[in-house]
Amino acid sequence: MSLFNNVALIGKYKSPEIAEPLLRLASFLAEREVAVKLDSLTAEHIGCNDHAVASLEEIGASCELAIVIGGDGTMLNIARTFAPYDVALVGVNQGRLGFLTDLSMETMIESIGSILDGDFVTEARMLLESEVFFDAQPGRKVVAFNDVSVNKGADGSLIELEVHIDGRFVYNLRSDGLIVASPTGSTAYALSSGGPILHPSLNCIALVPVSPHTLSNRPIVVGGDSVIEITMHKSVDARVHFDSHSHFDLAEGDRVVVRRCPYPIRLLHPPEHNYYHMLREKLHWSETL
Amino acid sequence: MSLFNNVALIGKYKSPEIAEPLLRLASFLAEREVAVKLDSLTAEHIGCNDHAVASLEEIGASCELAIVIGGDGTMLNIARTFAPYDVALVGVNQGRLGFLTDLSMETMIESIGSILDGDFVTEARMLLESEVFFDAQPGRKVVAFNDVSVNKGADGSLIELEVHIDGRFVYNLRSDGLIVASPTGSTAYALSSGGPILHPSLNCIALVPVSPHTLSNRPIVVGGDSVIEITMHKSVDARVHFDSHSHFDLAEGDRVVVRRCPYPIRLLHPPEHNYYHMLREKLHWSETL
Amino acid sequence: MSLFNNVALIGKYKSPEIAEPLLRLASFLAEREVAVKLDSLTAEHIGCNDHAVASLEEIGASCELAIVIGGDGTMLNIARTFAPYDVALVGVNQGRLGFLTDLSMETMIESIGSILDGDFVTEARMLLESEVFFDAQPGRKVVAFNDVSVNKGADGSLIELEVHIDGRFVYNLRSDGLIVASPTGSTAYALSSGGPILHPSLNCIALVPVSPHTLSNRPIVVGGDSVIEITMHKSVDARVHFDSHSHFDLAEGDRVVVRRCPYPIRLLHPPEHNYYHMLREKLHWSETL
Amino acid sequence: MSLFNNVALIGKYKSPEIAEPLLRLASFLAEREVAVKLDSLTAEHIGCNDHAVASLEEIGASCELAIVIGGDGTMLNIARTFAPYDVALVGVNQGRLGFLTDLSMETMIESIGSILDGDFVTEARMLLESEVFFDAQPGRKVVAFNDVSVNKGADGSLIELEVHIDGRFVYNLRSDGLIVASPTGSTAYALSSGGPILHPSLNCIALVPVSPHTLSNRPIVVGGDSVIEITMHKSVDARVHFDSHSHFDLAEGDRVVVRRCPYPIRLLHPPEHNYYHMLREKLHWSETL
Repeated sequence: MSLFNNVALIGKYKSPEIAEPLLRLASFLAEREVAVKLDSLTAEHIGCNDHAVASLEEIGASCELAIVIGGDGTMLNIARTFAPYDVALVGVNQGRLGFLTDLSMETMIESIGSILDGDFVTEARMLLESEVFFDAQPGRKVVAFNDVSVNKGADGSLIELEVHIDGRFVYNLRSDGLIVASPTGSTAYALSSGGPILHPSLNCIALVPVSPHTLSNRPIVVGGDSVIEITMHKSVDARVHFDSHSHFDLAEGDRVVVRRCPYPIRLLHPPEHNYYHMLREKLHWSETL
Repeated sequence: MSLFNNVALIGKYKSPEIAEPLLRLASFLAEREVAVKLDSLTAEHIGCNDHAVASLEEIGASCELAIVIGGDGTMLNIARTFAPYDVALVGVNQGRLGFLTDLSMETMIESIGSILDGDFVTEARMLLESEVFFDAQPGRKVVAFNDVSVNKGADGSLIELEVHIDGRFVYNLRSDGLIVASPTGSTAYALSSGGPILHPSLNCIALVPVSPHTLSNRPIVVGGDSVIEITMHKSVDARVHFDSHSHFDLAEGDRVVVRRCPYPIRLLHPPEHNYYHMLREKLHWSETL
Repeated sequence: MSLFNNVALIGKYKSPEIAEPLLRLASFLAEREVAVKLDSLTAEHIGCNDHAVASLEEIGASCELAIVIGGDGTMLNIARTFAPYDVALVGVNQGRLGFLTDLSMETMIESIGSILDGDFVTEARMLLESEVFFDAQPGRKVVAFNDVSVNKGADGSLIELEVHIDGRFVYNLRSDGLIVASPTGSTAYALSSGGPILHPSLNCIALVPVSPHTLSNRPIVVGGDSVIEITMHKSVDARVHFDSHSHFDLAEGDRVVVRRCPYPIRLLHPPEHNYYHMLREKLHWSETL
Repeated sequence: MSLFNNVALIGKYKSPEIAEPLLRLASFLAEREVAVKLDSLTAEHIGCNDHAVASLEEIGASCELAIVIGGDGTMLNIARTFAPYDVALVGVNQGRLGFLTDLSMETMIESIGSILDGDFVTEARMLLESEVFFDAQPGRKVVAFNDVSVNKGADGSLIELEVHIDGRFVYNLRSDGLIVASPTGSTAYALSSGGPILHPSLNCIALVPVSPHTLSNRPIVVGGDSVIEITMHKSVDARVHFDSHSHFDLAEGDRVVVRRCPYPIRLLHPPEHNYYHMLREKLHWSETL
């Protein structure tokens, strides 16, 4: 018996080493009389025929819970894909604690067991929805979990862009780039570029310039209902990146519009989950003096 | 006729140069059949007997609107005092645009006239309420508008403190200080110390370490409903400051608890008020490329 | 009569607006019985046949002084080209004070006149010499005046590299990039990325990481006789840039070696030249409180 | 037999736990026929009568080498005291690697043995000499090893000061403070405040503002022969600190002049000593990717 009747298992892409723990987890779930589905790509890589196999879209449409074994990168990919579906996510890391993969492989059977028993906390995380307008064409939409960033390209020249928030002009920026980060993304690229840590529960978006020419161009945090619009000025070479995972080239006049995605993603954690504990671990903060 | 029947006028402390504009404003208000009250300290300094005079507390209890002529420092003081009262505030600067004093003296008559006509936008700004616990004694409450900061004292040694948010341990900090800033305070001391700019509409609080010994101790933004608790470790010499305006000495074991003040302050602005325009002006951001 | 017998005039590339001041300067020099040579590209753009024309190499070999009208970008280009030659440089800006172009067009005749009279201060500025090793091939040498930077490319992924200084391992770096800057370059890209300002007289080189994944990876300043070696780890997409002017693609195992160029460049300034004054102007530092 | 005939032993102040290793070291030195002197304060705390005892001044005048057991703080104190004397220093840490105390207690006998054999590298480190002028009185000189910093005091208000370098006006600064750091001090307070790491061999001085009101007030590195002069503007409450160890109150018009101390201090290290290795250890830089 379980609170969740349909659970999917998804492993890190091309990582045969997750076969054993993943199949162990599958057996455990089957014993709990949970209908298990393996992501088709994962099943292919681990060469398993004992469990039902489904595409990510089928999983999204039919499962209440997806357990991801891998790192934060895998979680980012799955979260983007599942954004329109109502699937909760649990992340199991392969050894190194992740911001999104907080269960350890050693104790995952116990942790997942407790979650099936209903013993967990739910966290809703905002995603970002970006629409890119090339010339006068209709926009192309891309979802990001961490960040949408406009960066200089290969030629190494500064890019020049103009930022509006909620229709109001904010600034012209000459820089290596501009990162628009969700709270989840605030501990990723944005943090490296001097941005603040945003608690994941916040309905906020951070704008973090990368190597801005004007030294007073500092990170700004705005409300999660804000619409951020970036218009490219003349830039020999610029690109917009989504979670450093996909990108488009940008030319003068192209516009990138970023807003909160209408669907949050739900992460499940053990009851003792503590965001600040994870921050301390990941950022080597002091436990003692 | 006016939307506001009782309006107070408050000038910068010990600033005789504001007598002329303040009295001009008083006359204008009287013509509009508004009952004018002068803050008693202000009246004393400008030597005026033509208008009703009242203490700040009386103003708070009886006026719907207070017009402050001075700088941001004066506005901070008045906002703290008026926190428990239901008085809206308007700030007139003496020449240099302030974050809180956005009306210019040159155009104040027109601007105030429009506000009396109901032509304005209202902005609610969060204040911070701090409670300081010395030993086992009952806490002493102090309101701050910009920030509550714990800083090293005169002997120049690092201070050591422990931070809990909502009862959860966050980190031990060795640093020159720790600033807990409201969105309003995010463009003041916290900005100088590397904190992010928080849009004033946010229900958020920023924690910004000053010269932290651990380099990964970066600014954190948490929700406005969070309770931040700072406990002093052994520190030869530490102090807690409220808006850099008042302070207490702190000893080992003393605790500073910061939360949002239950009463926001209402600022009135002309309809064309634009926060980002003010940021650009104050921070010398680029208008053109 | 002049301290300098052979003086070259070089204008900003493709900038017809410098024709008039440049020819005015040429006439002035001719009156002073100085042999004037126009850079051939400049002569072509301004369509001038009245003065001797020479390539930059010929100028380098035959002139004692080159006057550059344009911006800092033009000065960087000319300084790199003239590195192996013994030509002093003077920079005239077109309106906006530059770090390298400190003479204004309005007063250039007087200023240049004084310089011809021997009334000037000389400043020797370090250049950087970079050698890039692809596989086991002999290195390709490139001179930079501001900086040699290794940056991520168009795909937006972090790059991974290894730094040795004087044969000693310093760190592995995951970041958007790493800037190796001369004192001249310390106020350019390196400053935007959080590097320190190095007084131009210093025999020092700064290493400034761009958006480093490890937050404690801070700028380091080493002696000007140090040899900095950067070895690329697996990086889908990385490039080395020289003054953001030219670049090479880099692959895993490629190495970039940076050292001080054996030839400094000599800049001439009016006697009242003041580096700190220029910093204040350019960085909007406070003159008054 | 030893390269050094007269060696002093100095322990951390009021630290009885160093008695055992210190006496073990004393015996080892005596066996090597080295004349051992114990610092009188150290001898008092560990209650030892078996070895000659001398004041720090006597040690300075008579010993060629002083071995310090403790932390970086103890080394700072001893280095300041020995600045005018020609005594080399070796630092033994009590467990945690220090920037200045690089020998571990476990291996100190072998390490010191090798040093007595002449197997070591010598490093000359710059100290800072500060002269503080109150009103028109003659200056009071204080030596610092890490830094001379002017900071706000207990009342929490910004301080206002004016900086000249080599007689040239640099800027007016409104801030929490200004740190003037030696290369040794560049990894201490200055690093926490955003300053660069200066290689200890550099003849350079860094000026690092603490929480500057003007966001473009960035760290500057100047030559070691520069004279830095800080003049206090109106400041209700300001102090100058030397290595966070001693301090003076400052009033309006008081001046702090900082220059390189004429005497460097000599640190001895094992031949395999590697500054970058120490930086990696202390700053948790990545060894692997």
